[in-house]
Amino acid sequence: MISLKSIKGIGVCRWKKQHLQGCRFVLFADIDAAVKLLLKLKVDYKQMTGQDYKAGCPPSENSVVPDNGPTADGADDEDTVNPWSVSTTNAKGVDYDKLIVRFGSSKVDKELVDRIERVSGQKPHRFLRRGIFFSHRDMHQVLDAYEKHKSFYLYTGRGPSSEAMHVGHLIPFIFTKWLQDVFDIPLVIQLTDDEKYLWKDLTLEDCHRFAVENAKDIIACGFDINKTFIFSDLDYMGSLPEFYRNVVKIQKHVTFNQVKGIFGFTDSDCIGKISFPAIQAAPSFSNSFPQIFGGRHDIQCLIPCAIDQDPYFRMTRDVAPRIGYPKPALLHSTFFPALQGAQTKMSASDANSSIFLTDTPKQIKNKVNKHAFSGGKDTVEEHRKYGGNADVDVSFMYLTFFLEDDEKLEKIRQDYTSGALLTGELKKLLIETLQPMIAGHQERRKQVTDDTVKQFMTPRPLNFNI
Amino acid sequence: MISLKSIKGIGVCRWKKQHLQGCRFVLFADIDAAVKLLLKLKVDYKQMTGQDYKAGCPPSENSVVPDNGPTADGADDEDTVNPWSVSTTNAKGVDYDKLIVRFGSSKVDKELVDRIERVSGQKPHRFLRRGIFFSHRDMHQVLDAYEKHKSFYLYTGRGPSSEAMHVGHLIPFIFTKWLQDVFDIPLVIQLTDDEKYLWKDLTLEDCHRFAVENAKDIIACGFDINKTFIFSDLDYMGSLPEFYRNVVKIQKHVTFNQVKGIFGFTDSDCIGKISFPAIQAAPSFSNSFPQIFGGRHDIQCLIPCAIDQDPYFRMTRDVAPRIGYPKPALLHSTFFPALQGAQTKMSASDANSSIFLTDTPKQIKNKVNKHAFSGGKDTVEEHRKYGGNADVDVSFMYLTFFLEDDEKLEKIRQDYTSGALLTGELKKLLIETLQPMIAGHQERRKQVTDDTVKQFMTPRPLNFNI
Repeated sequence: MISLKSIKGIGVCRWKKQHLQGCRFVLFADIDAAVKLLLKLKVDYKQMTGQDYKAGCPPSENSVVPDNGPTADGADDEDTVNPWSVSTTNAKGVDYDKLIVRFGSSKVDKELVDRIERVSGQKPHRFLRRGIFFSHRDMHQVLDAYEKHKSFYLYTGRGPSSEAMHVGHLIPFIFTKWLQDVFDIPLVIQLTDDEKYLWKDLTLEDCHRFAVENAKDIIACGFDINKTFIFSDLDYMGSLPEFYRNVVKIQKHVTFNQVKGIFGFTDSDCIGKISFPAIQAAPSFSNSFPQIFGGRHDIQCLIPCAIDQDPYFRMTRDVAPRIGYPKPALLHSTFFPALQGAQTKMSASDANSSIFLTDTPKQIKNKVNKHAFSGGKDTVEEHRKYGGNADVDVSFMYLTFFLEDDEKLEKIRQDYTSGALLTGELKKLLIETLQPMIAGHQERRKQVTDDTVKQFMTPRPLNFNI
Repeated sequence: MISLKSIKGIGVCRWKKQHLQGCRFVLFADIDAAVKLLLKLKVDYKQMTGQDYKAGCPPSENSVVPDNGPTADGADDEDTVNPWSVSTTNAKGVDYDKLIVRFGSSKVDKELVDRIERVSGQKPHRFLRRGIFFSHRDMHQVLDAYEKHKSFYLYTGRGPSSEAMHVGHLIPFIFTKWLQDVFDIPLVIQLTDDEKYLWKDLTLEDCHRFAVENAKDIIACGFDINKTFIFSDLDYMGSLPEFYRNVVKIQKHVTFNQVKGIFGFTDSDCIGKISFPAIQAAPSFSNSFPQIFGGRHDIQCLIPCAIDQDPYFRMTRDVAPRIGYPKPALLHSTFFPALQGAQTKMSASDANSSIFLTDTPKQIKNKVNKHAFSGGKDTVEEHRKYGGNADVDVSFMYLTFFLEDDEKLEKIRQDYTSGALLTGELKKLLIETLQPMIAGHQERRKQVTDDTVKQFMTPRPLNFNI
C-alpha cells in the first residue's frame, strides 16, 4: 500500500523563508505527488474493500478487512505488542505464533532446543524447554560460528523506571545468566536511564538512582563479575568516545520516517525519544565496548529479551550491514503475566499486579491467594467434576516459569485439569515455590555492596577468550 | 496555505496491526483528505503562480513568489538565512535590518557600542564600530550583571567540514578573542564534527581530523590557553557525563514539530539531524563544563556567532527557562561576502570563492585581482567621471572587515565613490592588507604544536574569577 510518508516532506519548505524562491516548483511537485497518491489510494481502497471509493460514503462494515502486516491469517488481530504497550483480549495471553509471523522472526523449535543442548553440552533451560523463549533471529548462525570456535557476547537490558522490580523483570536476566554460564561468554547489560527520563515524568537524578538500585537486583541474579559489564546510559555515554560514535553512526542511517513506522512516533514527540532507538541499538555492536573487545567491531552479539523489545532490534539489524557491522541475533521471550491474568504485562506501578522482589513471605502468600487469576471452577464440587483450566490459570503459568521439575509441573497440570488438584492447593504450591525464591534473592541482594555495584559498572576488560 | 502536517498521522495506523480493524475507514479518510489537499493545493498554486496547475508543466519563472514569514514589511523577501544556506539577490548582501525584525533580535546601536566601550574600558572592536556584529540578544542584561561584578563566559564554534578554512571563518574568532581580552573571561569553542558527519558525505574519522586541524587555525587567532577550552563533540561527549545529561534534558523539551518549524527538517531526515540541535544548544549552559565551572549552572553565556546560527539559539533560549537555566545572550555578525559578491556566503569547497588561510601572497593577489567583484565602472574614464560603488565592491567590503584604521577606510570609501581611487588601486590596498595578515596567521599556526592542541582540547579547569 502506498504511504503518505512518501510525500510528507514536500509541504515543509513552504514554512521556510529561505526556500521561497523554489516554492512554486515545490508546490507544483506537491500537487503532482498528491495526484499520484490519490490515484494509488483509490486503487488500494478498491483492493481492500472491494468497493469503489465514493466521496462522503465510507466503506460498509462487511467489506474486506485490510491486512497490512504479515499476520498468520487474515482474521482480526487483537494483540498490541510494542516497547511501551502490550495487551490482548485473550485470557491465554498474546498469540505468539502470530507474533512470529508478524515480526518475521523464527520459532524456537525442538530442533533448535536440541541443538543448543548439543552445542552447550547442557540440559536446556526450562525457559527453552517450555517455549518461554519462543522466538529467535539467527540463532543457528550463532551456533554455527560457535561450533567453529567463533564466540559471541550477550547483551540485554532494563529500563529503570522505579526502584521496584518484580519477578517478571527477572526473566531475561535468569535466562541470560544461564546462557553466560553454559557458553562462557561476556555480557553487557544496558540500563536505559536516559530513556526513562525521556518517557516518564522523572528527573535525571531519579532515573540514574533507579538504574543503580536495579543493578543490585540484577547482580543478585548471580552474574559473573569477571564477565559482566552493567552500565547506565547517562554514565556510559560520558565514559568514552566509542559509544557515542556508534550512536551517531546509527542516527545517520535511520530516518524519522523509519522510527515513525517502527515505533509510531509522532511530530509531537520530543527529539530525544525520536533519536533514542540508536542508543538502545548501539550496544549490539562490539566496538561500543573497546575496554572489553579492544576495538573489534566484528564480534557477534546475541540479545535475549522480551518480544516487545524486538522493534529496536529490527531497526538495528536493518542498519548493521549499512555501517559495516554484523546483525545482532535475538532470543525472544513471552511476557510474564500479571497476577490478574495474561492479558497484560505486569506494571511496576501497581503493587498488586505482581510479586515484587521486596515482598515478604506474607505479602507473597496474600497476593497469590487474593489476586492470582484462577482457572478453577466456582465450587469445589464443580472443580472436582469438570477440572480447572491450566491455560488461563496465572498460578500455573507462574509455576511454568519458576518450577524447575518438569515431571512435577506436568503432574500439577494433569491434576488441576482433572480436578484432583484444587485452586487453593495449586496456589499453595506456587507460594511455596516463590517464597524461598524471593527470600534467596533478597539474601543475595543484601550481599551486593556499593563497591560490588561500582565494580560491575566500571568500564573495564572482562575475562574471556573470543 | 494548507499543510500536509494536518493529514500526516493518518497513514501510520496502517503499519500497526493493533489498529487494523479501523483501517478501512482510515484509508477512506486518507482518500478524502488527499482529495481535499489536492483541491487546496491547486487553489494555492493558482494564487502563488497566477497560473492554473497543469500536470507535467511546471510554473514559469516570472510567476509570483510567495511570502510566508514575519518580514519587516509585506514586500517580497529574497534573503535566505539558515545554518545551511544563506543567499540573497541583493548585491549589497542580506538586508540585515529586515533580519533583525524577522528573527526578533535587537540592533547593536550606538548606545550599546558606547556602553560596551564604557564597561570594558576599551575602544570598541572595528566589528562593533562598523556594524559587522550588528544584532544581539540580551547584551544589556549581560553588561548590567558585569557592572555588578557578575561575570559571564563566551561560547562560539565551528562545523569542521574540511581542513581548509578561509578568512570569513575567522570573523567570529577574531571578535571572540577581543571579547575574551577586554572582559577577561573564559571561552568554550565547540567543533561540531558530529554535525558534519550527519550532514555531509564524510566519515567520522575525517570529521574528527578536520576538527583537530581547524583547532590549529583557531588557536592561531591568539586565544589565551589558560582561559580557553576547545572541544570536538565526538570526543567531549565521551569525556564526562554532564554534557550528555544537558543534551538529554534539552532533547526532552523540544519536539519534532519545533525543530521542523525552526530548521525545516522533514520526515526523510535522519534522526541524528533531528536531535542534533540539542548538542549545539548544550554548551550554552555552564554546567556542561563542570571542569571549568564546578557544576554551577547559573553562569551567563554570551555567544558571538554569524546570524545564520541564530535558529539554534532561539531554540536554546526557548528551552532554557523550562530546564532552569539562564538564556544565553548573543551577538550576531553579518556574513563575510564571497569574492564574487555579497549574494552568498563563501564556500569552503570553492577555492576561488574566498581567500584561504593557506593561500600564498601570489594566490591572494591573483584571487583578488581576478575574482573580487568590483563596484567600479567599465572604463577608467567613466570611473573618474561617475565614481565607483563601494556598497557592492567586495574589495572595499573586505577592507571594512580587516583594515583597522577608520580614517583611512573612510578616505578609501570617499575616493572610490568620487572616482579618485581606481578599482585596481583599491584591490592593491586590499592585497596589501591581506598578505601580511594571512602570512602572520600562517606563522602563528606553524607554532601551534600537537601538544598545544592537546592542551587546548583537554577538559581542565580554566584560570578566571567569576
